[in-house]
Amino acid sequence: MAYKHIVQYYETDKMGITHHSNYIRWMEEARLDFFKNIGFSYLEFEKQGLVSPVVGLNNVKYKRPSTVGDEVEIEVSVKNYTGFVLTVHYVMKKDDTVIFEGDSEHCFLTPEGRIMKLGDNHFPTLHNKLMELASSEE
Amino acid sequence: MAYKHIVQYYETDKMGITHHSNYIRWMEEARLDFFKNIGFSYLEFEKQGLVSPVVGLNNVKYKRPSTVGDEVEIEVSVKNYTGFVLTVHYVMKKDDTVIFEGDSEHCFLTPEGRIMKLGDNHFPTLHNKLMELASSEE
Amino acid sequence: MAYKHIVQYYETDKMGITHHSNYIRWMEEARLDFFKNIGFSYLEFEKQGLVSPVVGLNNVKYKRPSTVGDEVEIEVSVKNYTGFVLTVHYVMKKDDTVIFEGDSEHCFLTPEGRIMKLGDNHFPTLHNKLMELASSEE
Amino acid sequence: MAYKHIVQYYETDKMGITHHSNYIRWMEEARLDFFKNIGFSYLEFEKQGLVSPVVGLNNVKYKRPSTVGDEVEIEVSVKNYTGFVLTVHYVMKKDDTVIFEGDSEHCFLTPEGRIMKLGDNHFPTLHNKLMELASSEE
Repeated sequence: MAYKHIVQYYETDKMGITHHSNYIRWMEEARLDFFKNIGFSYLEFEKQGLVSPVVGLNNVKYKRPSTVGDEVEIEVSVKNYTGFVLTVHYVMKKDDTVIFEGDSEHCFLTPEGRIMKLGDNHFPTLHNKLMELASSEE
Repeated sequence: MAYKHIVQYYETDKMGITHHSNYIRWMEEARLDFFKNIGFSYLEFEKQGLVSPVVGLNNVKYKRPSTVGDEVEIEVSVKNYTGFVLTVHYVMKKDDTVIFEGDSEHCFLTPEGRIMKLGDNHFPTLHNKLMELASSEE
Repeated sequence: MAYKHIVQYYETDKMGITHHSNYIRWMEEARLDFFKNIGFSYLEFEKQGLVSPVVGLNNVKYKRPSTVGDEVEIEVSVKNYTGFVLTVHYVMKKDDTVIFEGDSEHCFLTPEGRIMKLGDNHFPTLHNKLMELASSEE
Repeated sequence: MAYKHIVQYYETDKMGITHHSNYIRWMEEARLDFFKNIGFSYLEFEKQGLVSPVVGLNNVKYKRPSTVGDEVEIEVSVKNYTGFVLTVHYVMKKDDTVIFEGDSEHCFLTPEGRIMKLGDNHFPTLHNKLMELASSEE
């Protein structure tokens, strides 16, 4: 089930449409909801001192505008996953029309800021789930 | 000397003017600059685990709009100061015309989140400076 | 029924809590929802070239912090209304505890930017509804 | 000469660093400054009813964090230009270290929302300048 975001007035700009930077924020919003739905609490993860920052954005396509009051449906999927790097894919729709697509790349960092490889010793449940989701996309 | 902020495109909304929430952000921006100019580094203050949150906003008047490209001059002054509570006053101008006025109220919190009274034992230099600035406003 | 806003990660700041400017945005978000619930579409209003800008903020009190994941309930009411000026009052709660209160002031502008008085000739239905809501607050 | 942006407190998030969506805003900020420096006023362009929206983002790499108080230098260059599509490249540095890189893609739209090809008949001066800048990058 897709995540839903209602566009707010303060998200528009003087073109009268949603400012493009807000889609990057909605990607985060939908990603955290997606993590929660697969049984992974990103906020609990952060309480352990760990972070999973955005390290890249790719293939971002602004196809149609949106504006205040619009209901945007956001589909999130795992595009690729190596244990080190997670690539998340987003498709945003308005009235069943694709208005935005894009990918974000993430790594996992220890409290000391070192890159962490998820696997048998670190977050095995999340690791296995991401492996499964990534392979189902192929 | 007034602090200057150039209005950015992403700060406008579909009315074609600066979204009103951004003036609240500019108050913060100008306040940190003001603190620096009176010899107080807010960022160093935070490194000691202390914070000075905004606890109130009052007398905020949006008098004239601004939009992308405008140079906004922000004058910051100490309106009131008790050791516990600091009230900062802002006047924003565009081409020498006042476009915005407002006050923000701040307290000072210890790392444990308790209210701290500035004075002889806590940040005496800042305390004396704020006392002096507050009295010069009367 | 109160409007609900889930705090987003991008709404936090380095204090780890919601940046105070976002509450001003949520006031707008809840106000537009409130207008819709009393049968007034602000977006339709704007399509006629009319606007109702924020002209002031008062009595804004930040009482408790909120952070990502929190569900904030926002109660909106009409505090005062003269036909020229509308004062809206907001109470925000988290787990039934008040975390924020504040007022916003609004006027109504014609497409030429002149102040408009609502009444028998301009938006009588909205006018009567606001009169009724304002008097029920007394 | 690179464009400079001082990171603001309200641009940080609970990780204590600049929220990644702000770099997308700074790209816009630096791009409008870049246009101005090559003799093209984007704001004048918009006054004619024309717009040049962001249609894509690519190769965005978040390499190092930044935080409040940091001075970020932003170098803007034309990566590719066809008359229809303009690709702008950004390199952001802090203390001479690259912290961010990325590309944005833009098209040009008429007041009716149709795609416009710049050239001899539409904005020839801008067209020639962009052609020259694009070829100097090869």
